[in-house]
Amino acid sequence: MPLNQQILLDNRPTGEATVSNFKLVSSATPALQEGQVLVQHHFLSLDPYMRGRMNDARSYAQPQALGEVMQGGTAGVVVESKNPKFHVGAKVVGMGGWQQYSVVDANQSGALRKVDIAHVPLSACLGVVGMPGVTAWYGLMKICEPKAGETVVVSAASGAVGSVVGQLAKARGCRAVGLAGGPDKCRHVVEELGFDACVDYKAFPDAKSLYMALKEATPDGVDCYFENVGGMILDTVLSRMNAFGRIAVCGMIAGYNGAPLPLTQPALILMSRLKVQGFIVSEHMEFWPEALTELGTRVASGKLKYRESVALGLASAPEAFIGLLMGRNFGKQVVKLI
Amino acid sequence: MPLNQQILLDNRPTGEATVSNFKLVSSATPALQEGQVLVQHHFLSLDPYMRGRMNDARSYAQPQALGEVMQGGTAGVVVESKNPKFHVGAKVVGMGGWQQYSVVDANQSGALRKVDIAHVPLSACLGVVGMPGVTAWYGLMKICEPKAGETVVVSAASGAVGSVVGQLAKARGCRAVGLAGGPDKCRHVVEELGFDACVDYKAFPDAKSLYMALKEATPDGVDCYFENVGGMILDTVLSRMNAFGRIAVCGMIAGYNGAPLPLTQPALILMSRLKVQGFIVSEHMEFWPEALTELGTRVASGKLKYRESVALGLASAPEAFIGLLMGRNFGKQVVKLI
Repeated sequence: MPLNQQILLDNRPTGEATVSNFKLVSSATPALQEGQVLVQHHFLSLDPYMRGRMNDARSYAQPQALGEVMQGGTAGVVVESKNPKFHVGAKVVGMGGWQQYSVVDANQSGALRKVDIAHVPLSACLGVVGMPGVTAWYGLMKICEPKAGETVVVSAASGAVGSVVGQLAKARGCRAVGLAGGPDKCRHVVEELGFDACVDYKAFPDAKSLYMALKEATPDGVDCYFENVGGMILDTVLSRMNAFGRIAVCGMIAGYNGAPLPLTQPALILMSRLKVQGFIVSEHMEFWPEALTELGTRVASGKLKYRESVALGLASAPEAFIGLLMGRNFGKQVVKLI
Repeated sequence: MPLNQQILLDNRPTGEATVSNFKLVSSATPALQEGQVLVQHHFLSLDPYMRGRMNDARSYAQPQALGEVMQGGTAGVVVESKNPKFHVGAKVVGMGGWQQYSVVDANQSGALRKVDIAHVPLSACLGVVGMPGVTAWYGLMKICEPKAGETVVVSAASGAVGSVVGQLAKARGCRAVGLAGGPDKCRHVVEELGFDACVDYKAFPDAKSLYMALKEATPDGVDCYFENVGGMILDTVLSRMNAFGRIAVCGMIAGYNGAPLPLTQPALILMSRLKVQGFIVSEHMEFWPEALTELGTRVASGKLKYRESVALGLASAPEAFIGLLMGRNFGKQVVKLI
C-alpha cells in the first residue's frame, strides 16, 4: 500500500488560525475491504467553512476532531477497487480530506460522485461545477429568486461562490454588482466575469464611504444580496436593500476568527420587509443534479468563467488555507497534489 | 357641524416621546361633499408603530407630518352621510386619527370598513378582530408556518398582537411560550390565554439569566419566533432557535426611542439556517378576509380571549400612548371617546 501523507488538526486556534494549528504526518493506507476503493487525490478543496469547524463551538457541523485528518472535499482517481461500480481510473469527487489518499466505502450513499464531464477539468469539480457552484446556484435561485431587471449584489465576488452568483444573475437579466478586496479582483470581476460593477471594499475602510461607493454602483437599490462575509459589509448592503429584498446568508467569514460581529441595524429587516435566510447546500441534495447540469453546460460552452488559485503539494495546504481566510486567494483555492 | 377636538403632532421627540410632543386643538368639522360621511369616533387605537412615524426618518411609512392630526385607527359610527353605501348608524373602522370626528370619502377603496359582527364589541375591531389580530394571524400563518408539535415563542405576549399569536399557535397544536414584562402579565398569559409558559423578562435583566429562563420554558428549542420587541430579547431567542427555524419580524419597539439596537450574533442565522422575515400587514390585504373570519368566529365563540386597556377621553391619548411604549398597558390599548 502506498505511503500516505496527511495533515491533522493538532490544536485549535485562539483568534486567527495559524500554520501551527496543523501537523503533517505519514502513515500506510490500510488494505481494502469489500466495497471499498482507494482514491488518489489530485486536488484538495480549501473552503472558508473549514475555519468554523476548527473551533470547538456549536455550529451546523460537528467540530473537526483534534488529531484527525482535516476534513475537506477532494477530486481524484480510483487507483484500487473492491467495488464493481467504481473501476480503477474512474474520476471521483468526495470528502477525502487533507491527505494524498483515502479509503472510501463507495457503497455509502453520497460518499463518492463520479465526475467525467466533457470540457470540464477535474479541479473545476471542486469549484464552479462542484460544491461552491451549487452553493451559488441554490442561494441565488431558491432564496434570492431574482427577477430580470433586479439588482443582485454578492460579496467575495471573485471567489469560488461569488463569481458564479454574479454570472448566473447576469444570465437571468439582472444587474450584477460585486464586492471584492482590491483593484485586481474588481477588474477581473467586471472585465472577465462580466459583472456590471464591483466595489473594492478595501478602498473604503469606513462604513460611510463604503455606503456611498455601493450607492453609486446600485443606483436602483439592491433587491438580492448573496452574503459571504458578514460584518461591516453586511451592515452596508442592508441599508441599500429595497423593500421586499432577499438576502441569502451563505457565509460570515468576517466573524470566524474571533468575537461575533454584530448587525448594527436589525430594524431594517422590518422597515424594508426583508427576508434573510441562512442555508447550507449539503442539506439540499435534491437540487444538485439540476444545478450541476446547468453549471457544467455553461462551463463547457465557455459562458461561465472561473479562476483558480492553485497551491502545490500537500504541505502547502495550511498556508494556502490561511491565505484564503485573509482573502489572498483569487478565485477558487485548491491544492494540487500530483 | 359639531366641534371637533383633535390632537396634533406638535414637535418630534428627541429620545423618548413625551406628552409635550402633542397639542390638543379644536376646530369645526367641514361640511360634507358628495360621497363623504362624517364618522363619530367611539374608540381610537394606539399602536407601537406610531412611535416610528413620529421620527423624521426613513421607514416603511411616511413620517407623521408636524402640525397635523396624529394618524391612527378608529372605530366609530356614521352620524351624517352623503354616501348611499354608508347609512347613518353604520359601525365602521377606518384611519380617522386622534380626533373626535373624521370626514371620510367613503368611496375610496379601503377608507372605511363596515363592522357589525355578532358578539364582537366595536372596540375589538381595533384589536383582536382588527389590524393587530390580522398581524398576528399573517405573521404566524404565512411566515412562521408552525407545524403541530413545534414550539412558538412570542414577545410582548400579553399585548394585542402577542396574545393572538400564542392562542392561534395553541389552536394549531403547538407549544406556545410568551415573553412578557411582570408577573401579572405572565400569569394572565398562562392562566387566561392558555399559553404553556411565559417568561417574565423583567425578572431577568441580563442576557445569561434570561437565556436560562427561556431554556427552561423551551426544552425542545424554538421553531418559530414572532418578534415584537427586538434588542436583548431577540438576541436571546435567536440563540434558542432550532435548525430551520422561522422568525417573523413584526416590531422592534425596543429601538424606537433612540440608537438602533444591534443584533449581537447574526452568524446564528447561518448556523441554524434560519429564515428571518419582516412584514407589514397592510401590504397583504388579500389575507384580511380569511384572517378576520377566523378571528371573529373564535372571539364570538369564546375560544379567542383578549384584554383591553381603556383610556378615557381624547386628552388622555398622549399619556396612554407613552404608557404603551413603556409596556404599562395590559392588552390592546384603546382610547374611549364616548
